[in-house]
Amino acid sequence: MKINNDFFMNLAINEAWKYQFLTYPNPAVGCVVVKGDSEILAIEAHKEAGMPHAEVNALKAAFLKYHPNDVLKTLNDSFKIHEYLIKNHKGFFNDCKVYVTLEPCNHIGKTPSCANLIKELKPNKVIIGHEDSNNDAKGGIETLKLADIDIELDCLKKEAYELLYPFLKWNSGTFIFYKMAQTLNGSVDGAISANQAKAYVHSLRDKIDLLLIGGNTVRTDKPTLDARYIAGRAPNVMIYSKNKIFDRKIPLFHIPNREVVISDDLFKLLDHKFIMVEGTYTLLDTLKEKLDYILLIVNPKIRKGSNALNDLDIDFEIVHENYIGEEKLVFLKRKS
Amino acid sequence: MKINNDFFMNLAINEAWKYQFLTYPNPAVGCVVVKGDSEILAIEAHKEAGMPHAEVNALKAAFLKYHPNDVLKTLNDSFKIHEYLIKNHKGFFNDCKVYVTLEPCNHIGKTPSCANLIKELKPNKVIIGHEDSNNDAKGGIETLKLADIDIELDCLKKEAYELLYPFLKWNSGTFIFYKMAQTLNGSVDGAISANQAKAYVHSLRDKIDLLLIGGNTVRTDKPTLDARYIAGRAPNVMIYSKNKIFDRKIPLFHIPNREVVISDDLFKLLDHKFIMVEGTYTLLDTLKEKLDYILLIVNPKIRKGSNALNDLDIDFEIVHENYIGEEKLVFLKRKS
Ligand SMILES: [Zn+2]
Ligand SMILES: [Zn+2]
Repeated sequence: MKINNDFFMNLAINEAWKYQFLTYPNPAVGCVVVKGDSEILAIEAHKEAGMPHAEVNALKAAFLKYHPNDVLKTLNDSFKIHEYLIKNHKGFFNDCKVYVTLEPCNHIGKTPSCANLIKELKPNKVIIGHEDSNNDAKGGIETLKLADIDIELDCLKKEAYELLYPFLKWNSGTFIFYKMAQTLNGSVDGAISANQAKAYVHSLRDKIDLLLIGGNTVRTDKPTLDARYIAGRAPNVMIYSKNKIFDRKIPLFHIPNREVVISDDLFKLLDHKFIMVEGTYTLLDTLKEKLDYILLIVNPKIRKGSNALNDLDIDFEIVHENYIGEEKLVFLKRKS
Repeated sequence: MKINNDFFMNLAINEAWKYQFLTYPNPAVGCVVVKGDSEILAIEAHKEAGMPHAEVNALKAAFLKYHPNDVLKTLNDSFKIHEYLIKNHKGFFNDCKVYVTLEPCNHIGKTPSCANLIKELKPNKVIIGHEDSNNDAKGGIETLKLADIDIELDCLKKEAYELLYPFLKWNSGTFIFYKMAQTLNGSVDGAISANQAKAYVHSLRDKIDLLLIGGNTVRTDKPTLDARYIAGRAPNVMIYSKNKIFDRKIPLFHIPNREVVISDDLFKLLDHKFIMVEGTYTLLDTLKEKLDYILLIVNPKIRKGSNALNDLDIDFEIVHENYIGEEKLVFLKRKS
């Protein structure tokens, strides 16, 4: 296996995917810091909006690799890490390469600008997967170029683009994914997922703008659709149904600070940026032209059961996969 | 992400899985060489029986990383690489760590002993995933200990064991895997796999001892079951059938140096070490208690079609996954 720029960028991309969706409304970004030719110091990612960017996490971890007891260890706030590194780096990064899946940000938002931090630390080279098209944040490449930092663009650009795609979509409109669980052989009957996968679904519910669910699922299963496994925020819900009559006593309707809309107007979806669809497979058919992703949770068992997708005809690309415990998480992008 | 022994061992394990089954009758083994604390010099694997072991490939690649134009580059024979490295290493490996998924071999077979080579190169440390239980090859740890080389055992032992499992099984008896292709939703109808996946199946046929196939598949599909996509060897075939009457004119029966047995005696399988089952899903039910793995090739599309596994009831563990082109390759180990 070749140990080259693609190898290191791939480590950054895989690390970032672990937090895909969970960084909303920010993009998932990964960063790797390598000293000299191939001394790997840090593999980090952006984990949640408001928390340090991938570059900050990686530069901090890289510095700590050589200075394990430095006071930097105690700093968690982005502004403080920036300030500390700029004051104390003493040229540590001058023989380092910084791999980042997305052009470093150039604006000061909830966290200070990564382009500025990198400029001050003067690494030997910055290798970038995909440029930033976000008007607020772009310009990082220019900032680095003006500071005479060597830059290489488009490293694993296709993979970096796929990592960025949900952000590009929700940033310019609406990103919709369908969450479903099945056995290896495609059966969707009964309770399929283990607790770890359920907790993951709750952490997604905590992040999304809207949860779309079919009316029949609400009537039959009476789900609460909250994020209690992670003590998170229950998302707003749209029940897709012509018939507006529901048993209003079920818990779904009684969660504080949650809006529930009952509607069969799919245009309402365009008022939201990040939507998860759960539950009914008939809804999948209705939505199939609007769907960006299926997030498929596969339990590795073979079981008798109905295969509710059988009447669909859709092609996908597997853009990434993770594990949650013993189950598989497959990020499927619809081919258009 | 922590950059520690587990991280490097994981790189070795993943590299080795790329050649799982293809190393038969040898085990799949991976090796990573790291200079100092985390300067990664080589990630290599054993690729095919008779070719250099993982350690030899990795030590060679690591040396070449610092000496890119050295004559070592031109050497491909294990004996010659051993000899050259022992003569010319000049202490290069003294500050290196060697991660190897399996205890280095201690015997001189088709290739010389890796334990001896490592002993001579005197790396700073050897980190081993799983000990070797093969009577011919074991003793590598002892050889290294006697040479005062620092050793750490059981690094990612569970993962290293899963990598080694097919070897342990065929080495002590029979390893049987069922190869099947399906769409995302579990449909098995029609032609599913793309050409890259077909070529991979042919490279497996080139390695196995026996291909087991159901009588009805032979009667209906008239498959040739050779390895023509890779210009490989056509495997011996056992047709599982009570009824011995077949159209003997079909190509399957006319491949030079191939044996074809028609039998419904599953005990005959025990005469072979490495068996692939193809074709009929009824056979899967018959074999399910004897099966070690399912090798599942998943094409990421949803299609209407029958789900032939629906009447089975089996639990699996996903032990590894790869891609072949756009398709997924899932190594499923049956839970017993
Ligand atoms: Zn930033
Ligand atoms: Zn060896």
